Amino acid sequence: MDKYKVTHRLMRQSIKSLVNRQLTSNNPIYRFISAFPLGNGGRNPQLYRSFGSLATKVERNPSFSSLNSDDLSYFKGVLGEKNVVQDEDRLETANIDWMHKYKGFSKLLLLPRNTEEVSKILEYCNSRRLAVVPQGGNTGLVGGSVPVFDEVIINVGSMNKIIAFDKVSGILVCEAGCILENLISYLDNQGFVMPLDLGAKGSCQIGGNVSTNAGGLRFVRYGSLHGNVLGLEAVLANGDVLDMLGTLRKDNTGYDLKHLFIGSEGSLGIVTKVSILTPPKLSSVNIAFLACEDYLSCQKLLSEAKRKLGEILSAFEFLDSHAMDLVLNHLEGVRNPLSSAVHNFYLLIETTGSDESYDKEKLEAFLLHSMESGLISDGVLAQDINQASSFWRIREGVPEALMRAGPVYKYDLSLPVEKMYSLVEEMRARLGQSANVVGYGHLGDGNLHLNVSAPRYDDTILAQIEPYVYEWTSKHRGSISAEHGLGLMKANEIFYSKSHGTVQLMASIKKLLDPNGILNPYKVLPRSLLSYS
Amino acid sequence: MDKYKVTHRLMRQSIKSLVNRQLTSNNPIYRFISAFPLGNGGRNPQLYRSFGSLATKVERNPSFSSLNSDDLSYFKGVLGEKNVVQDEDRLETANIDWMHKYKGFSKLLLLPRNTEEVSKILEYCNSRRLAVVPQGGNTGLVGGSVPVFDEVIINVGSMNKIIAFDKVSGILVCEAGCILENLISYLDNQGFVMPLDLGAKGSCQIGGNVSTNAGGLRFVRYGSLHGNVLGLEAVLANGDVLDMLGTLRKDNTGYDLKHLFIGSEGSLGIVTKVSILTPPKLSSVNIAFLACEDYLSCQKLLSEAKRKLGEILSAFEFLDSHAMDLVLNHLEGVRNPLSSAVHNFYLLIETTGSDESYDKEKLEAFLLHSMESGLISDGVLAQDINQASSFWRIREGVPEALMRAGPVYKYDLSLPVEKMYSLVEEMRARLGQSANVVGYGHLGDGNLHLNVSAPRYDDTILAQIEPYVYEWTSKHRGSISAEHGLGLMKANEIFYSKSHGTVQLMASIKKLLDPNGILNPYKVLPRSLLSYS
Repeated sequence: MDKYKVTHRLMRQSIKSLVNRQLTSNNPIYRFISAFPLGNGGRNPQLYRSFGSLATKVERNPSFSSLNSDDLSYFKGVLGEKNVVQDEDRLETANIDWMHKYKGFSKLLLLPRNTEEVSKILEYCNSRRLAVVPQGGNTGLVGGSVPVFDEVIINVGSMNKIIAFDKVSGILVCEAGCILENLISYLDNQGFVMPLDLGAKGSCQIGGNVSTNAGGLRFVRYGSLHGNVLGLEAVLANGDVLDMLGTLRKDNTGYDLKHLFIGSEGSLGIVTKVSILTPPKLSSVNIAFLACEDYLSCQKLLSEAKRKLGEILSAFEFLDSHAMDLVLNHLEGVRNPLSSAVHNFYLLIETTGSDESYDKEKLEAFLLHSMESGLISDGVLAQDINQASSFWRIREGVPEALMRAGPVYKYDLSLPVEKMYSLVEEMRARLGQSANVVGYGHLGDGNLHLNVSAPRYDDTILAQIEPYVYEWTSKHRGSISAEHGLGLMKANEIFYSKSHGTVQLMASIKKLLDPNGILNPYKVLPRSLLSYS
Repeated sequence: MDKYKVTHRLMRQSIKSLVNRQLTSNNPIYRFISAFPLGNGGRNPQLYRSFGSLATKVERNPSFSSLNSDDLSYFKGVLGEKNVVQDEDRLETANIDWMHKYKGFSKLLLLPRNTEEVSKILEYCNSRRLAVVPQGGNTGLVGGSVPVFDEVIINVGSMNKIIAFDKVSGILVCEAGCILENLISYLDNQGFVMPLDLGAKGSCQIGGNVSTNAGGLRFVRYGSLHGNVLGLEAVLANGDVLDMLGTLRKDNTGYDLKHLFIGSEGSLGIVTKVSILTPPKLSSVNIAFLACEDYLSCQKLLSEAKRKLGEILSAFEFLDSHAMDLVLNHLEGVRNPLSSAVHNFYLLIETTGSDESYDKEKLEAFLLHSMESGLISDGVLAQDINQASSFWRIREGVPEALMRAGPVYKYDLSLPVEKMYSLVEEMRARLGQSANVVGYGHLGDGNLHLNVSAPRYDDTILAQIEPYVYEWTSKHRGSISAEHGLGLMKANEIFYSKSHGTVQLMASIKKLLDPNGILNPYKVLPRSLLSYS
């Protein structure tokens, strides 16, 4: 599991140094951040603009109050002086997202230590109409976890206790601020695994994972958090604490309201505790790194793998040759384990099972058969943990390599597997020499990460990508957000993936649960639907 | 799979003949049904009473209209004469539940053939304030699928088309009226399996399964419908059609509202189409029938099985010696495959995997080890499909054997596995010689079916069971309905398993989606919370 930690730390570091470098030069990111109207944070209607998406106008909701000294006194009374943060450096970190793409202007970061404190501060904010943004590890990719204007930031990172773990059932109950990697380590020591794993594990928090319905690398095996989260506790905008912290696999007593909070990106309530089903750790893990020459073969291999490896398949990831080139060119110490030639597609297949020899034999037989039938042109099987880590490093290194390569437009799409790569090819044809179009992602789940790496952020390029990419996705009944959420970036694009009636009902539910709209405003739902008087 | 079909048909038949027999005699069921005030169906406040639960007063909601001839003309205009059913025999069947425990007095059964028709009739009923009860296969066990008074019955059984099946992704899209067993057969032919299987498969419909969040026999392997249902279409009380029929494994665009309709027992909308993820069929199925002498051993064996059989475990069912005795005494042709002695507990373990020889070896090694360590005292492994069916017949035959044995009080509880059987023992001590207390169910999911078989329905016995059973369950943070739902039987008991705030929010959502409360009234939520003007 250490490979992920290393990867993520490297990535954090490299992105930070990259951005620091850019901030001092006349490059796009510098220009972007300096374009913010820093002077009037929070008081007047503003123009918000972000990269990677067409310019988006967002006006500050005029019904929201602005912070005053009474508010600060109240918060200090509830949380204690040191948990009411006004320090500029700490606020700067909390105001900017992980990609340095979105920046807010909050003047206040609150660090509650328990559910009661979350309840008190939310009740107060609601009565005062102070908007808030719930923040976890702030590793989101769609601007969902940072303020847009002067929203009060509430970070539950201090609520990081494991409350209970039942070794018979494998059910873990913990506070929302637990860092995913810590949970993974804890469970590993207990002989269990977290059904969720993703690159940002070293920073992201389980409350944020649940609130964004994070997908990640184990999805093909363990499925969605809607299936694995057994219960949760959430605090509503008015401070009401909803105890839905069940620890049962089955519970059909009334509407299963926890699902409203899974994936609603903190816009309906702040998740404070989570109960999650964790499977026992299985002893045998095998990893193969393979090459295919065409996308159809990748697809066929997926179908075969589901059938032949069925119950032991735990990852089926892919990257195209453009992604591989980036990784080889921009990441130190990474080499292509398939040295024979350049291939068009690369696949990483992982199996996890209870018996080393059976599982390995199964995988080897599958690979041999796939080689003979021409589906794969080359392949290697990791012989030890170091090789396994190096294979994962290639797949997980793609986002980092893209960041190092320069400006990048990122899209996280769910598409029928058979159509997934056509979009990459069409986009490549559409953009010609002006950009490097890269496709990679979770093939086993039909989740494409389409990235366009360009020499500079450029409205001409952007106009060729959007809304084309959303229209294409919509036409093929895909989703414009497979796992990242909508956040600020795609709140207004929701109709590409959801019907009008469904979105209207979402807005009604938002108004029911958060009538003043204080929770994570401007995000998730189209702003046109949420009018506040 | 044929074993299930046979079992279910037998069961339907036997129960029918049983009830017919009882209806002609002076036994409790006869007295129960004749106690209904048949004469004033639907017009005046009534007293409703059911077996197996303390007398429940339900008054007909006076804001509901009664049917008139204009209504009938409208429905005939929309659905055609033959789909507007007033025939007494057909109404009789639709008014009585599968267990013959609940009986309504509806004068009208509507059979829409498509979503548009469902939409039109719901819009009309809503505008006229005609209450409706959505009905699928009418196999529910809590009185959720039959009218209480004169509600119009809407049965979507005519909407039984398979709309699409994608062999690459395994995603099936079908109409809500498809019978589960037909879907299982269809998928079997395509090389896939339905992630849901239950005894009532020959009659129950997928729309009803989704609406009640059915659990069943494959839950331990494939998990909840909240994880497997990818999308659905539902018609709201006002006739609005909500298209949430996604066919993607991942879709994080806004609130995932489909979960509101999964398990809400038709009280928020009528499910008309379903999209479901189906895993590939795996070739190797092995079934063992085992004996344990104490409950602790059963528990330990479950923990071991999860770890040692992990990825291939597909069922872990149990029954106690009381259940076994009933099966042996009341079902023809059933014998105990473990002839050596009488044992205290019996377990059925099923594995499903991709390789016959590996899987069998794994299971055999596991059983050998468990035998050596003393967890199991005896056991057999099915050598062919007939033996496999005969093992399943024992476990699946328990409800039928109970019905044959006489009056039975049935409880479907979710409890922490380690506490599950204590309730059976406490109940047995509590009731002494007055009744036969039987425990069986889905041990792998912590789902106990506690049944009390008594010589007669008797308020003294009932008062010893309830509310004790609910209080005990609540004290141990269990659920008073693991998989059957609340229906009419337990609508008022919801607070044993759900917090007040959560139930209040459920009621708010009910009012938001169905302001006139026409959908499946008197069910799921406490009647005190749903006041209609």
